[in-house]
This record gives sequence, C-alpha cells and structure tokens, in this order.
Amino acid sequence: MRIDIITVLPELLRSPFEASILKRAIEADLVEVHFHNLRDYTTDNYKSIDDTQFGGGAGMVMSIEPIDKCITKLKEARTYDEVIYMTPDGETLNQGIANHLSLKQNIIILCGHYKGVDQRVRDLFITKEISIGDYVLSGGELGAAVLCDAIIRLIPGVLGNETSALTDSFQDNLLAPPIYTKPRSYKGLDVPEVLLTGHAANIDKWREDQAYKRTKERRPDLLDD
Amino acid sequence: MRIDIITVLPELLRSPFEASILKRAIEADLVEVHFHNLRDYTTDNYKSIDDTQFGGGAGMVMSIEPIDKCITKLKEARTYDEVIYMTPDGETLNQGIANHLSLKQNIIILCGHYKGVDQRVRDLFITKEISIGDYVLSGGELGAAVLCDAIIRLIPGVLGNETSALTDSFQDNLLAPPIYTKPRSYKGLDVPEVLLTGHAANIDKWREDQAYKRTKERRPDLLDD
Repeated sequence: MRIDIITVLPELLRSPFEASILKRAIEADLVEVHFHNLRDYTTDNYKSIDDTQFGGGAGMVMSIEPIDKCITKLKEARTYDEVIYMTPDGETLNQGIANHLSLKQNIIILCGHYKGVDQRVRDLFITKEISIGDYVLSGGELGAAVLCDAIIRLIPGVLGNETSALTDSFQDNLLAPPIYTKPRSYKGLDVPEVLLTGHAANIDKWREDQAYKRTKERRPDLLDD
Repeated sequence: MRIDIITVLPELLRSPFEASILKRAIEADLVEVHFHNLRDYTTDNYKSIDDTQFGGGAGMVMSIEPIDKCITKLKEARTYDEVIYMTPDGETLNQGIANHLSLKQNIIILCGHYKGVDQRVRDLFITKEISIGDYVLSGGELGAAVLCDAIIRLIPGVLGNETSALTDSFQDNLLAPPIYTKPRSYKGLDVPEVLLTGHAANIDKWREDQAYKRTKERRPDLLDD
C-alpha cells in the first residue's frame, strides 16, 4: 500500500510516523508513506497556498491551484483508489471504513488547514471526505495521522500477533471486556477469580458477558446496528 | 491551563506540539503541556510497564504500579480537574466536551497502549474516559494529541481571530457552508455569484442556507439534537 499525504505542515506529521507501529510497518515495506509540501507546488514568489474568502469572513481558504498541481503530478505516476479530504463535515470514520481502506493500493490524503479548501477542490478532485469525529481541529494533519494509524495497523503483518486486532473494540460491534495483569491484588483490588482458574470456556464466557454488559451500558447504539 | 500527558511513547507525540497552533499556544504561555514517560516510574531493572493478561489472550496489558506512581506524584504537586484515559470504549469526543474541557485548569491525560490498561487503573484513578471515534488506533497518543488540539485551540487568545472558532462546524450544530477563494473562475468552475456582490445580508443568508442544506444531506442527526 502507498499513501501520499498532501499538507502545508509536513513537520507536524513527522513523529507519529517515526515511532511504534507505523515506523515498523514502513521499515518492513508493508506500507509507503510520502509527504508532499503544498508550498512546493505554488507559482508565486511568496509561496502562498491560501487567500481570503470570497464574500468576506474570518479565516483563510486554501487555494485550488497548488492542490491541483500536486494531485495531477501524483496521478500521472500511478492510479489512485481514493483521493481523501480530511474535513469535519466528511463521513465519520469508523472501523468499517478503516477495514475497507486497508485493502486499497494507492491513496491520496489531502489535509485541510485554516478554514478549509476552496469548494472547487472538493468538486473536482476528491472522491471521499472523511471526518475523524464531531469536533474541530486546527488542521487535517492529526486527522490524517489518525486515519493512517487506523488503516495501517490492519495491514497483514503489521501487528505482531494477527489475532490482536480482531479482538479489539468495534470489530464485532462490541466494546472490549476489562483486562487485568499482575499483581493479583493491588491496594485491595483483586483480579476477578474466573481469570485465575485457567478454565478457558468459563473465561471466554465471562469476557463475552462483560463485553456485552459494557457495550450495553456505554454504547447501546452499537448493539442496534 | 496545564496538561500532563502520561505515555510510553513521548517521542510519538513530539511533532504535533512543535508546530502550528499548539506550538504558538505553548510559546505564548496560554497552555503548558508536560510529557511523562511511564518508564521513568518503573521499579524493576527491565523498566517494564506491561505484562501478559490474566486469563490468557493476545496482547499485553499496561500495569497499574508505574501509572499509580506517576499520577500520585502529579497529584502531590497540584489538584487536577480531570484524569482522562484515552480509550476506544470511552465517551465519544465531541465539540461540547472540547468546549467544556477548555475551561479547566489542570488535566492529566493517560494514553493507553497495547491492549489497554489494567482495569483497576480505571477503577482507582480515572475520572473521565474519552474516545476520539469508533475505530481502534495503535495507542492513545494520537488520541491525546487530537484531544489537546481540540481543547487548546478554544483557549482565548490561541487563534489569531477569535471569531474564527465560532464559525467552525459543530459550534451551532451545523456543518460549515462551502468556501471559495481566488481565482473567480478555475477550469470552468465559477465562484457563486452572491459571494461577489458585497451584499452582506444576502451572503449571510446564502451561507446559512448552504450550511443547513449540507447538514441535512450529510448529517441529519445533528439537526435532531
């Protein structure tokens, strides 16, 4: 899989890709991630990538021309499955979308910044608009990092233990059950007895019950789906 | 405002806080962000912060002792309004929660990693569990960065133009209307005429209509609230 990220702040994105699972996935050639600085695609001396809004109002708008140049250049080199725009009014990311995107070959992710991009960028180039949640961030960069993390960890071989991702929350519309590790007793709080019995069937049953109970308490909406 | 982030991967978190709005907010002393490496609070020679699950199963669990030591030390120095745990089964972050948290003085954010933390950490120390969305990430670090960004940009003085955050998506349960900047015409796509008229009342009306239309098409659930 190849992911091309278009941004005005490539330096903001650096460290999440240089640590932990994303780093390992890149080093193992399971995914390629390329950053493209929009300022490299500007045509004026000021390298400006934004301008004021037509109609007035606070906040700058990202211009269409540098984005067009960057996307066009990428598309000349290969075919892309999706050109994704990170925006709070996009489709809300969930585990199903992450699963789906983890099967793609080539993806472009455009990070919005300031008030967002000129609407014509969305009309002309974008095939999918994604929001990571109902809140506003100062740019699309953290959203892009979140999307990449959610996708990349699902690529076979990325997680050490392949069963690990399948027992995560959301994969079966249930939240994960409580988990415990040593010590058995800590400041008067004990690990539930059943987990110490070694009786696999009872433990599975307890975990299923707990996962269902937690989901019912916290996220009954997941059970309706 | 002071935010203390407890993590096993402080290096993953670095760049988002060293760029753009978060950097400016920190430099202007509008917020203090401190990173605490859990490994500094371990007691064994291996600096281990995790262990296998009781009851068996894939994935490691973060131990209670180093987390207890770190949180206890922080609480000795000051009072905290919230001790937040980033976890996919927490309350889903939205703009209302971000607004609310932006008014707090001192917050601890604990980043989960691996399969998560020992349940007793949650029972003993955590006052609020937050998820940034219905998907699983390889750790709570990106979630913590997202939460910090959503909160910090709301602190008065952080955004250059104070009216800017108030016209974002979600602040009034409406998505933002389309925005345009120069040039007026690009590859046959024109900016809507009304935005060029200079007629403020008509422009406001158009934006309101567009915001409502977009919300109705994309996120009718927001209109129900």
